[in-house]
Amino acid sequence: MDTNSPTVMSKNDALALRYGADAIPAAGPWNEHIALLLSHRSVRGYKPDALPEGTLETLIAAAQSAATSSNMQTWSVVSVSDPAVRAECARIAGGQKHIEQCPLFLVFLADLSRNERLAKANGAELEVLPYLETFLIGAIDAAMAAQNAVVAAEALGLSTVYIGAMRNDPARVGELLGLPPGVAGVFGLCVGYPAPGAASEVKPRLPQAAILHHGTYSHAEEPAHVADYDEKLAAFSGRFEMAQTTWSGRVLNRMGKLKGLAGREKLSGVLKAMGFPIR
Amino acid sequence: MDTNSPTVMSKNDALALRYGADAIPAAGPWNEHIALLLSHRSVRGYKPDALPEGTLETLIAAAQSAATSSNMQTWSVVSVSDPAVRAECARIAGGQKHIEQCPLFLVFLADLSRNERLAKANGAELEVLPYLETFLIGAIDAAMAAQNAVVAAEALGLSTVYIGAMRNDPARVGELLGLPPGVAGVFGLCVGYPAPGAASEVKPRLPQAAILHHGTYSHAEEPAHVADYDEKLAAFSGRFEMAQTTWSGRVLNRMGKLKGLAGREKLSGVLKAMGFPIR
Repeated sequence: MDTNSPTVMSKNDALALRYGADAIPAAGPWNEHIALLLSHRSVRGYKPDALPEGTLETLIAAAQSAATSSNMQTWSVVSVSDPAVRAECARIAGGQKHIEQCPLFLVFLADLSRNERLAKANGAELEVLPYLETFLIGAIDAAMAAQNAVVAAEALGLSTVYIGAMRNDPARVGELLGLPPGVAGVFGLCVGYPAPGAASEVKPRLPQAAILHHGTYSHAEEPAHVADYDEKLAAFSGRFEMAQTTWSGRVLNRMGKLKGLAGREKLSGVLKAMGFPIR
Repeated sequence: MDTNSPTVMSKNDALALRYGADAIPAAGPWNEHIALLLSHRSVRGYKPDALPEGTLETLIAAAQSAATSSNMQTWSVVSVSDPAVRAECARIAGGQKHIEQCPLFLVFLADLSRNERLAKANGAELEVLPYLETFLIGAIDAAMAAQNAVVAAEALGLSTVYIGAMRNDPARVGELLGLPPGVAGVFGLCVGYPAPGAASEVKPRLPQAAILHHGTYSHAEEPAHVADYDEKLAAFSGRFEMAQTTWSGRVLNRMGKLKGLAGREKLSGVLKAMGFPIR
């Protein structure tokens, strides 16, 4: 191993951090790749230190190695360096300063325009373009690619955080990045070395039984799972964040009122204007 | 390393397989985690051999460790064992026999219903539910989670293939899996040991310069990139697949006519009926 990768944790320790010691799932095979995946935490504060040369290209090689629907490769990515553009992205994201701090900031794009240009060059049209399905393929392609980039970054001892808030104003993001019709930013990604104190503990998730269903979907036990998780997240947030809040409290706060969407309730209309009819 | 993981390839060999020896990007840092990501290939034929005990729980622990938008965890997954349901899924997917062969078949779900049930239990409503943005969060959450499961599976020497064709008929998939309103299958995932001859070579992708933009989006060099890639994919398909076809030929075939969507042109309407207004 030539990495600064996080300490390889034992299966039991890693699962206890992720689920709580009383909710460890009956996981089987284990190795250092899986320990790396389990160690993920999002980081919202970065040192200005530059990344080793070629890091961007390594991350993109990992991203391009993810599966892509029918090999259509309907995604692209922009690396944003200009401080003024970074500042504007941070503003769009509601003041997320880490977008300005981090040494590498990427915006992942659903990109149908490349395939469309290819068709035009061949005197053809792509009948599938106006449909929700085709936009969704671009967004899912971008998400899978980005997740590989995240795993690669963390394998190199770097930290990351996704910026879904690029969707607060995709039209403005499109202007900033010079996107043609048929291309839209689906999220950003900060990459860098965590600032002192910025890397907190692994965040607990819902117990596996709340997420994983066998054969058919069942939510009979869900209230108990949520009650258990509410306690865990309250304890976690009390240790590491501003205030002690349950998961239920957070869900209601984030999803209860339309203002939680911070403008994203207009996404469908904005995307239409950007060349995605989303029929 | 206690794995059956694929041979760890050198940086140069791995990049040459992914991009062609004449298009190797200037990647920097490298280690065995990144070699694993680069070695991905989708596999469409499986041995019936069962997976080691606890493999499913290991994969789901990896999946739940991926980032999820605002920790809302708007995804779920069903493990499908019933041979009759598998056969019906294979039929929906246009006759993909590997869905019936593989020892583990998962359907990843965009799931807003859990958060909605939580709100109802608290006497509240979630105003954000009917919007495209909220469905998209579920789909992206599911994609990032699934990609972590794929990396974990490949780290254990297993192979995978995504089944986007679950979206050919999401309503029928919903019936088969007993999904309540506000839950929809976004794709399937086959996991298992490759059948003899089923694991082909790493598939080349577009050159990095076609995907990665610096500062602003530019496609000035794109025709040359596509021409180069057309040759590479024709050579690849001639070696490993039915017929020698360029990338351009595949794009036109898959995206040119509406029938390429295999019913997915109805996705927007079908999702509406399943509880996703997608406003």
